[in-house]
Amino acid sequence: MTFDLNLSMDVLRRTPQTLRALLDGVSEPWIRATEGPETFSPFDVVGHLIDGEETDWIPRARIMLARGPDPRFEPYDRFRHRARNAGARLESLLEEFAALRAANLDLLRAWKLTARELDLPGQHPSLGLVTLRQLLAAWVVHDLGHIAQVARVMAKQYRDEVGPWVPYLQVLTDNMTPRS
Amino acid sequence: MTFDLNLSMDVLRRTPQTLRALLDGVSEPWIRATEGPETFSPFDVVGHLIDGEETDWIPRARIMLARGPDPRFEPYDRFRHRARNAGARLESLLEEFAALRAANLDLLRAWKLTARELDLPGQHPSLGLVTLRQLLAAWVVHDLGHIAQVARVMAKQYRDEVGPWVPYLQVLTDNMTPRS
Repeated sequence: MTFDLNLSMDVLRRTPQTLRALLDGVSEPWIRATEGPETFSPFDVVGHLIDGEETDWIPRARIMLARGPDPRFEPYDRFRHRARNAGARLESLLEEFAALRAANLDLLRAWKLTARELDLPGQHPSLGLVTLRQLLAAWVVHDLGHIAQVARVMAKQYRDEVGPWVPYLQVLTDNMTPRS
Repeated sequence: MTFDLNLSMDVLRRTPQTLRALLDGVSEPWIRATEGPETFSPFDVVGHLIDGEETDWIPRARIMLARGPDPRFEPYDRFRHRARNAGARLESLLEEFAALRAANLDLLRAWKLTARELDLPGQHPSLGLVTLRQLLAAWVVHDLGHIAQVARVMAKQYRDEVGPWVPYLQVLTDNMTPRS
């Protein structure tokens, strides 16, 4: 598929409702499950997505659209959410994420980006030169990757409960090297 | 986590709404996307989950609960949905899946399974002896694995659109050996 702004927004607007369907009100052991030390639980993923709304995708798009002489992104803190959300309830984080995402998509829609604007460059702190189009495509993939992660992390909690089914349930053996 | 019937049903009841949030009304290119030849699209996954409701999980649980001398499962046809749903609309499949799942969970709840019943054996056509507990745990993991698959398959459609972000978006390079 070639990048398309409407197709992208069609996915981006679904992420809050997808995570709500999967997680809102679910029992605590599923919420706090991980794939091992230093990996994200479903709770962490929602916090990480909130960080993305506040400090990553739209702030970086703004830097690109400002067309300054040095469109350098701020480094992104993958662990900001740990301190920010200590003691928060998942339900309120899901609400917060939905509100932030809706506001960011309203803004993105209001920009009415042209093909030329989608080519605007930015300087990523470690990846080098990227375009606004690539940033927006990465936003979509990032959402879907974290939805997949939440489902995978939950699945792995029953790794020892399925008996001989393990080889038929490949999600249990995916990503054996834990990652956050 | 140890198998728990309520924790399991808490996940099983969420799958139809999760897939609706992600897929109901989404643009056609996302629905028909795959990871390569002979792999499942999101459309195929919903059809495959319907097959599971009609021919796999609950029918096999019934065989176990019947306590017959030879509790052998019928082999499961992974491609039944291809012919069954040719020409169907995703929206109607999502509705059908939700109705089948709700009815199957009503039944499962009504059985009020005891720990002893959860130990009842069944004969899987290729995996050998399994228990009802393992069957129900596998049902949960199977759901979550297919949710992860839908998100991953969609993400991969933007593989060539994210530019230098590929190494940061591991969902793009997961499961490089295509599978259905």
